[in-house]
Formats: sequence, structure tokens, C-alpha cells
Amino acid sequence: MVIEYDGSEFHGFQRQPGLRTVDQVIETGLAQLTGETNTVTGAGRTDAGVHALGQVVAFDTESTIPPDRFAPALNGILPEDIRVLVSEATADQFHPRYDAKSKMYQYLIYRERVGFTLYRRQAWQLTDPLNLEAMQTAAQKVVGFHDFRSFMASGSSVQNTERTVTLLDIAETRPWLAFTVAADGFLYHMVRNLVGTLILVGRGMMTPDAFAAVIAARDRTKAGPTAPAQGLYLVQVAY
Amino acid sequence: MVIEYDGSEFHGFQRQPGLRTVDQVIETGLAQLTGETNTVTGAGRTDAGVHALGQVVAFDTESTIPPDRFAPALNGILPEDIRVLVSEATADQFHPRYDAKSKMYQYLIYRERVGFTLYRRQAWQLTDPLNLEAMQTAAQKVVGFHDFRSFMASGSSVQNTERTVTLLDIAETRPWLAFTVAADGFLYHMVRNLVGTLILVGRGMMTPDAFAAVIAARDRTKAGPTAPAQGLYLVQVAY
Repeated sequence: MVIEYDGSEFHGFQRQPGLRTVDQVIETGLAQLTGETNTVTGAGRTDAGVHALGQVVAFDTESTIPPDRFAPALNGILPEDIRVLVSEATADQFHPRYDAKSKMYQYLIYRERVGFTLYRRQAWQLTDPLNLEAMQTAAQKVVGFHDFRSFMASGSSVQNTERTVTLLDIAETRPWLAFTVAADGFLYHMVRNLVGTLILVGRGMMTPDAFAAVIAARDRTKAGPTAPAQGLYLVQVAY
Repeated sequence: MVIEYDGSEFHGFQRQPGLRTVDQVIETGLAQLTGETNTVTGAGRTDAGVHALGQVVAFDTESTIPPDRFAPALNGILPEDIRVLVSEATADQFHPRYDAKSKMYQYLIYRERVGFTLYRRQAWQLTDPLNLEAMQTAAQKVVGFHDFRSFMASGSSVQNTERTVTLLDIAETRPWLAFTVAADGFLYHMVRNLVGTLILVGRGMMTPDAFAAVIAARDRTKAGPTAPAQGLYLVQVAY
């Protein structure tokens, strides 16, 4: 299923005892629909506050409900901060994370005013002057096959930290500044750490060349802070 | 004070026992700040789910806090779905509702998709084809001095239902359709009933001439349904 959610009131994607998570809410809805105990697997484990416009989830079922009917049936059951956009049958061995060829994220910054109540959960609100051209120059250094260890959350246990970033676009449409990033895979907090570091470049605290040196350093302590969760959107997963 | 709030999690502006309302939240913040029991009066009693970008509230205080310091001090105390934009001293007899010369509201319709989680509390989601030109023709009949009884919520006890509407603009910037309405005053549910009825015109269920006849009828049963609360924004109050 392709699903969309407003991450504001979820404690992330992944089940945690006693907390409202995306997988738990879907599993509860599925149980109501099928009478089975279904376990849902997702393409990306979004954190608390992170949104999804095109998350992909899969589950096994013996149900006789036609695959395409799961979407409307679940939408009648699920709370309105989560919607199923598409439901369809897959090959038996399909895995939404391992089979993903690439993912695309967007990161939104609202430039008009800090503290604007209506977008407090949908964007990072940042009014500092930013040098867009310097950020775009630095962003081009991200594109390609690199070791992105500098941008992986410390404490993450992943061994292979090499990824291929195919796109890092930064577009300003006042009052919005949007980062669009596509890659064959992402490390934990990679997009938020890239954005947090590119903002240092935008503020003039790091040159585009120093940014390139951060990539080469393969050291989390050289990169900038993690941009806040509420600006991040999982837009699309490709197979 | 000029204040802004996301109305989603408020049971409207006006105090109701046991419920989270805008005035109660501000009064609680003020009590913490001044040690007094302050009663807050607003320019408009927005309903549950209705937002404000420029609501005006007033209160009496003996506090020695400089008037312009109330805004930052309260913003440090208040929850993040309500912000104080400006605080200043007024004349002793100032009343935010009775002294208002005009108010401006906006009503937002999201045209892309029904059920989009991220805007579910910020706009009416409506994808039906709409005849914008017919709506604009009808809207022009609203502008001017009229008896707006047809657009007042039934059960409202207001006697004088004549108001002067100075502006009713309908602008489409895909995926948004925005109604901007200004008047010297508004009846209860007037904007939402005007929008709900104009949508009937947009759908071809009512001609612009029939719309004019609805105004003339001075009868709520002739007008269309009340548009949902979450699309409505109190934008500005002028004195």
C-alpha cells in the first residue's frame, strides 16, 4: 500500500509499546478489517514528527478482500491523519525496504516568520538570511557516490555507509525553501543532517569547499546540527 | 493584543467549562504572568476549528510589566498553537468588539484532493468542478449594504441583521481557492454560510440571480449549507 500521513501525532513509524505509531495504527485497522493479526513492514522508518506523502507498506494476508479494496475500506476505519492512497497485490517475496531502488525526500523551510502557529508542525521556521547560491554549490558536492558517514546519526550501527545521491535540489519559492533529495538509500538522519549542515553554508558559517571536506571527513562531529523533524517528508519510494 | 492561533485544538474562543478555549488559555497565561485574575475580551468569537491570524483581545491589568513586554513574556508561557503578535496599551474604555470598524476573514478551499492529511484542519477539501466566473458574479451581489438574515445561523438572537460588506473577492491559485470577505460586522456563521451558498453557485445548482434572490429573501432556509469551520481564518480587525 502507498500511504500518506501527517507525522505530528505519531511517535514515528515503528511500533513502540504504549505509543501511537504508524505501523501500530495500520495493524489495528487491518485487524479490524481482516480478523487476522497482520504485521506491517514499511519502506522507511520515519521518526516522530516526520511526514509521508508516499510511504510504502506491505503485509501478508489470507483475506478474500480484493487487494484494491483495502484502500477504501481502511480509509473508512483509520484516523484522518493517515490515508491509504493505493493498495495492490505484490509478489510473495516483496519487501518494501529491501526491494526499494530509490527514495525521495523533501525538506521544507518556512521563511516568513518563526513561531507561525499554522505551519509549526509542517516546516522548519527559519528567517535568518541565507546565501542560496552557496548552498546550491555545496549541494552539488553531495550528488554522486560517496561515503556519507559524516551525516549519519551517531550511535547508528549501519556498517556500509556508502550511498548514491542522484538529486539534491534546493528551490526557493517565497515563503518556502524546499530541499529535494533522492538516493538509492539513506542513513539514519541523513537528510536532516545534510539540511542542517547546508544551512550552516547558507548562513556563511561554512564555505562550499569546507562542506566538501565534511563529506570527505567521514566524521559526524564535522557536520552541522540535525534539522528538526517536522520539516521532513518521505515523498516517494521507487522499485 | 493582536494574536494568532491554530483553531484545531481549541473549542472556540469563548470560555466553556472544562474545555480548552482561546480565552481560557490566554487568561491562564496572564494569571501566571501578573498574579491577577484577568478577563480577556475578543473582537470575534471564533468557533471550534476556526483559525485567527489577527484576532484582537483586551484585558485590564494593574501590572507594572510594560505593555509591549506582554507579547514576548506570554509567548514564553503559552502553548505553541497560540502566539501574541503585538501587545500595547489602549484607552481605558477600548472594547475589541464594539470599537471594531471592520473585520476581514479568509476562507480557504483546497482543490487538489479530498482527505489530504496535512491540510485536513486548515482548509475545506473540495474537488468538484466549480464555475469560478458564476461564483464571482454572485459574490458581487453580496458587496454593499444588505440585510444578511439569510446567512445568519438559525437560532441566533441578533435583531439588527443589516451589515455593509466592502469586499468579497474569490481568487484561485491552484490548488487553492480563497474567499476574502470584509465587512463592518458579521452575523453568526455569516462567512461560512456565504461560502456554502456560493459553492452551490459554483456547482451550477444555483444561478447568480437565484443567489441574489436568496439575499433578498431574508430567510436562512433559502441559503446553502454552512461551509466547515476548518477553512475559516479571522485575518484582521480594523479600528
